[in-house]
Amino acid sequence: MIQKNKGILTVVSGFSGSGKGTIMKELLKRYEGQYALSVSATTRNPREGEVDGREYFFRTREEFEQMIAEDALVEYARYVGNYYGTPRAYVEEQLEAGKDVILEIEIQGALKVKEKFPDTLLLFVTPPSAEELKNRLVGRGTETMDVIESRLARAAGEAEGMEAYDYLVVNDVLETCVEEVHHLIQGEHRRVSRNIEAISEMREELKSFSK
Amino acid sequence: MIQKNKGILTVVSGFSGSGKGTIMKELLKRYEGQYALSVSATTRNPREGEVDGREYFFRTREEFEQMIAEDALVEYARYVGNYYGTPRAYVEEQLEAGKDVILEIEIQGALKVKEKFPDTLLLFVTPPSAEELKNRLVGRGTETMDVIESRLARAAGEAEGMEAYDYLVVNDVLETCVEEVHHLIQGEHRRVSRNIEAISEMREELKSFSK
Repeated sequence: MIQKNKGILTVVSGFSGSGKGTIMKELLKRYEGQYALSVSATTRNPREGEVDGREYFFRTREEFEQMIAEDALVEYARYVGNYYGTPRAYVEEQLEAGKDVILEIEIQGALKVKEKFPDTLLLFVTPPSAEELKNRLVGRGTETMDVIESRLARAAGEAEGMEAYDYLVVNDVLETCVEEVHHLIQGEHRRVSRNIEAISEMREELKSFSK
Repeated sequence: MIQKNKGILTVVSGFSGSGKGTIMKELLKRYEGQYALSVSATTRNPREGEVDGREYFFRTREEFEQMIAEDALVEYARYVGNYYGTPRAYVEEQLEAGKDVILEIEIQGALKVKEKFPDTLLLFVTPPSAEELKNRLVGRGTETMDVIESRLARAAGEAEGMEAYDYLVVNDVLETCVEEVHHLIQGEHRRVSRNIEAISEMREELKSFSK
């Protein structure tokens, strides 16, 4: 019987300003119970309104380094003096439970995850054009030209890794884009390489019928 | 600008009794203008009601062998004394026009096409289980057990090639299945390897902005 297999680990990266956060929030709302968003662990202090286990798992430096030592993180990085990482246990539990797990991380982390879990699906979210990305970054109207230029430089850097991803997700109309992400992940469940066992069972059964 | 690229060549194979013909007919009807179904050439005689250029391009043996000699076929095979093949010109014209071209052929042909056009997407249509396939073959109620058994043996043979395909299409509910095929092919347009040029343009543009 060919049925939905184990959950798929999907890493979503994309330009700052690509709207990936909004897309994921909408995806999880629209297909409740089907997806799980991975919550990162961090050593930085909680900001006002942030709840442990919702925005982040807040950990001390000692706890975090203990997790590193125990290989309890799928990937981790240091950023401005703090650790950020993806706890392995949560990801594996959700995948076993058949949920498709979404990690929102940048390219370096994405490549580390892919190395550890070669089955990972890598999606890169982009506006339809460089021009449009520029307009979105400028358009907020709240930033100085210095900030905008540093964002554009950062985007140019982010673009360096795009070829390592499996699919581009073009965020033009949010609604369409959410559906596209959903179809890419669900389509992935039908990939032959993820159904080798079911295929081989089916073949054996067919052979037994025709004897 | 990341836009829809060239059409995608999709080969659809599947068990006899999988309903692949019905799925494709429905797909073409529902998304008129977006897909093109490749018409095969053959040396067999037209049956009543068959129209040249619709069911098949009917060709003489000399004409067909001329096409082989000119490499004018994407793939061809001999079956019960007649030639069957896929004319290359039609496929290439439709792809250039941005249409996704569907070829309905069996596994040997599928592998030959993939060899010539490595970008080909290979879909394999299957009922949800071997039991269900058996029921469908038996269920028509019009065949002798001999015919049914030879069909099951053929299905067991067809199953040998399943691993060479990219995706399984599970035909349980027709409506759902047609949508699934549509999403698999459209999702394929977003594959990074099919957008290398657009990605590289975007990167250059972003670099020019941030200078």
